Amino acid sequence: MPTPTPSETLFPTTRLEAFSDGVIAVIITIMVLELKVPHEDGIAGLLAIAPTLFIYLLSFSFTGIYWINHHHLIHRVEQCDHRTLYANLGYLFAASLLPFFTSYVIDKHMDPFSVSIYAASMIFTGFTFLLLRLSVGRLLRQAGELQQEDIATKRKHYASLGLYIVAILLAHFHPYVALGIITIVTVIWIIPTAKVHDEYADTSMPTSGGR
Amino acid sequence: MPTPTPSETLFPTTRLEAFSDGVIAVIITIMVLELKVPHEDGIAGLLAIAPTLFIYLLSFSFTGIYWINHHHLIHRVEQCDHRTLYANLGYLFAASLLPFFTSYVIDKHMDPFSVSIYAASMIFTGFTFLLLRLSVGRLLRQAGELQQEDIATKRKHYASLGLYIVAILLAHFHPYVALGIITIVTVIWIIPTAKVHDEYADTSMPTSGGR
Amino acid sequence: MPTPTPSETLFPTTRLEAFSDGVIAVIITIMVLELKVPHEDGIAGLLAIAPTLFIYLLSFSFTGIYWINHHHLIHRVEQCDHRTLYANLGYLFAASLLPFFTSYVIDKHMDPFSVSIYAASMIFTGFTFLLLRLSVGRLLRQAGELQQEDIATKRKHYASLGLYIVAILLAHFHPYVALGIITIVTVIWIIPTAKVHDEYADTSMPTSGGR
Amino acid sequence: MPTPTPSETLFPTTRLEAFSDGVIAVIITIMVLELKVPHEDGIAGLLAIAPTLFIYLLSFSFTGIYWINHHHLIHRVEQCDHRTLYANLGYLFAASLLPFFTSYVIDKHMDPFSVSIYAASMIFTGFTFLLLRLSVGRLLRQAGELQQEDIATKRKHYASLGLYIVAILLAHFHPYVALGIITIVTVIWIIPTAKVHDEYADTSMPTSGGR
Repeated sequence: MPTPTPSETLFPTTRLEAFSDGVIAVIITIMVLELKVPHEDGIAGLLAIAPTLFIYLLSFSFTGIYWINHHHLIHRVEQCDHRTLYANLGYLFAASLLPFFTSYVIDKHMDPFSVSIYAASMIFTGFTFLLLRLSVGRLLRQAGELQQEDIATKRKHYASLGLYIVAILLAHFHPYVALGIITIVTVIWIIPTAKVHDEYADTSMPTSGGR
Repeated sequence: MPTPTPSETLFPTTRLEAFSDGVIAVIITIMVLELKVPHEDGIAGLLAIAPTLFIYLLSFSFTGIYWINHHHLIHRVEQCDHRTLYANLGYLFAASLLPFFTSYVIDKHMDPFSVSIYAASMIFTGFTFLLLRLSVGRLLRQAGELQQEDIATKRKHYASLGLYIVAILLAHFHPYVALGIITIVTVIWIIPTAKVHDEYADTSMPTSGGR
Repeated sequence: MPTPTPSETLFPTTRLEAFSDGVIAVIITIMVLELKVPHEDGIAGLLAIAPTLFIYLLSFSFTGIYWINHHHLIHRVEQCDHRTLYANLGYLFAASLLPFFTSYVIDKHMDPFSVSIYAASMIFTGFTFLLLRLSVGRLLRQAGELQQEDIATKRKHYASLGLYIVAILLAHFHPYVALGIITIVTVIWIIPTAKVHDEYADTSMPTSGGR
Repeated sequence: MPTPTPSETLFPTTRLEAFSDGVIAVIITIMVLELKVPHEDGIAGLLAIAPTLFIYLLSFSFTGIYWINHHHLIHRVEQCDHRTLYANLGYLFAASLLPFFTSYVIDKHMDPFSVSIYAASMIFTGFTFLLLRLSVGRLLRQAGELQQEDIATKRKHYASLGLYIVAILLAHFHPYVALGIITIVTVIWIIPTAKVHDEYADTSMPTSGGR
């Protein structure tokens, strides 16, 4: 595990992880409050909320996959600096807007504009996560632990942001196609950075997971 | 504690536990927001919300017992792979739907259809938990730590899912009997897998609980 | 720290603490959602919500003080059994009802009946906490670590429950006096069991707080 | 890390941190429930909620920065006394009011009175945090670990409280100028006490972050 130059002020990542876990846990769960019991009885009611359930599933997956990537990223370092604390706060802010834009796209019945700002909020989250990745990457570089796979992941990250921009533009003409692109990008990240972690699965063995 | 073959990428379960605790804590608590103060004053008001309180107690117990079983299950391993992280996310997604279907069954005054989808949501949670159990079981098998009791627990799990299906079918004719079956299954799991844990209560003694 | 007889199945208290912290954190915080912005503008609006703010402060203090007592209690043991896990779940269930009965007493403008069930919900929480205390006490007795102060605390606990019953009875005639008694009991617990902890402040020194 | 005189009863700060993280995580996230989907469609809707989003950003930053300062402060000690537990509870109570006063200032369209009580709630949080800082400072002084930088931070704290009082007074005449002052104070705390931490970044190196 990297321990950057002593000239910087460093904190253990324990509380950064605990606080992020708490915030992401609340974000991912309060979205369920958006699901409103339909007026219709029986199967008709269930069908009426099917699109809402799909959007909920999409937002849940998006947030859950980001949590897994957050887990991967912070797991790489044992201590972090101020820059990382603030980048993390920025990411949490962006992520905390998703429940709002989820209810936005649901309330507006997935009209073009609501789908674009839903995609825009995902880009914003992606962008702040990129800043977090860069600030952790900086710590890793200082410790000489930056790897080939990190660069591959960063490239994947840029590609995703590009696809979200395509989704925003497409949303005005084909909102459902835009939602499809968002779904695909979400699915791509399900296998996030498998290769990256091979290495410290080994290094962390002796101390049972580096914790 | 098992440490599977080094060829797989592994993570300590610390954050998986912390994140799951956070999500389950929010799930179990936001259900209380479903309880609405009745219009009637005095004892009449309290009686009016008695069925709601019972459903809340049922959903709380269901989620709480799953948390205890989650605790038991993840306690068996010290590290987990990607498969487990995603199976866990799937379980959390299913569990996060319970507050919604709890408010569904309350708003629809426990009509047959709402009781069946309430039971269906419990099956869904049970099914995703089974996937989580299988993914942890796979890690245990690789480490040669799978035990007789694990197979007994899995059988109990299948029986529960079967009873939930009976509850779904029965709900159309006798919703209250269906709720009774759901209650019984919940109670059965209160003594989850007592025997399973005897063994590492001993092994973990020297290191005070393996943590 | 006591390690009960090996014949029982034991778990480290780490996750019990983490889950309880999560649930109590949500309970204590979602009560703020009960505070509704008044229609009146300016100082009149603030005065209109003053009683609501007082009830919120009371419920917050009640929950916060219970958290501190929970912290004290669980800190005494390093491992717990099934009985403790379920007693803890029972306590969390009782505690989770407080936000509901807080909004009950607020919505009903502190009428006699609402104040009695508010007090009753506090008794219920106190009773389930007593069960938790007994189940932890059982572990301590087995380990020969039960102390004089524990008995003093238990006595204080019984006295509190008695005062809550007086509050329930009084609420029908003098709701504000009943709220006064509840406030006094809450304040009494602010200095919970100071003496009890002297001993393991010392014993835990070498290992920095027994953790 | 300081270990105060054995005559006091002490607790490890682990659970204080975990509980505070949980409460602050819920506080910072439920504020998003205040954001209401606008009635207007398209860009007009987004413009309609722009001021609301700005207030949300301000409250999020305020709470997030306090979390970072809380992290810094509690990181200084390994064990705490009763006084600190209650000072922390007081701080959490004050912080928990922010979501309410955030919705207050939003619902009242940032009128002078609502901006003053919004600023007043920030002062209240600042004041309770000062009490927490003093109670931790007391532990540090007993252990002979109080430093020059702590006094600098305390001075900065007093200055902030003074500026909030100016904001309250100004709010009656120029609510937007008052919001500007609040924003500036928030920004000032982004670089909280950088120098203070240099010292234990070094001392904690050997044990990887003092945890």
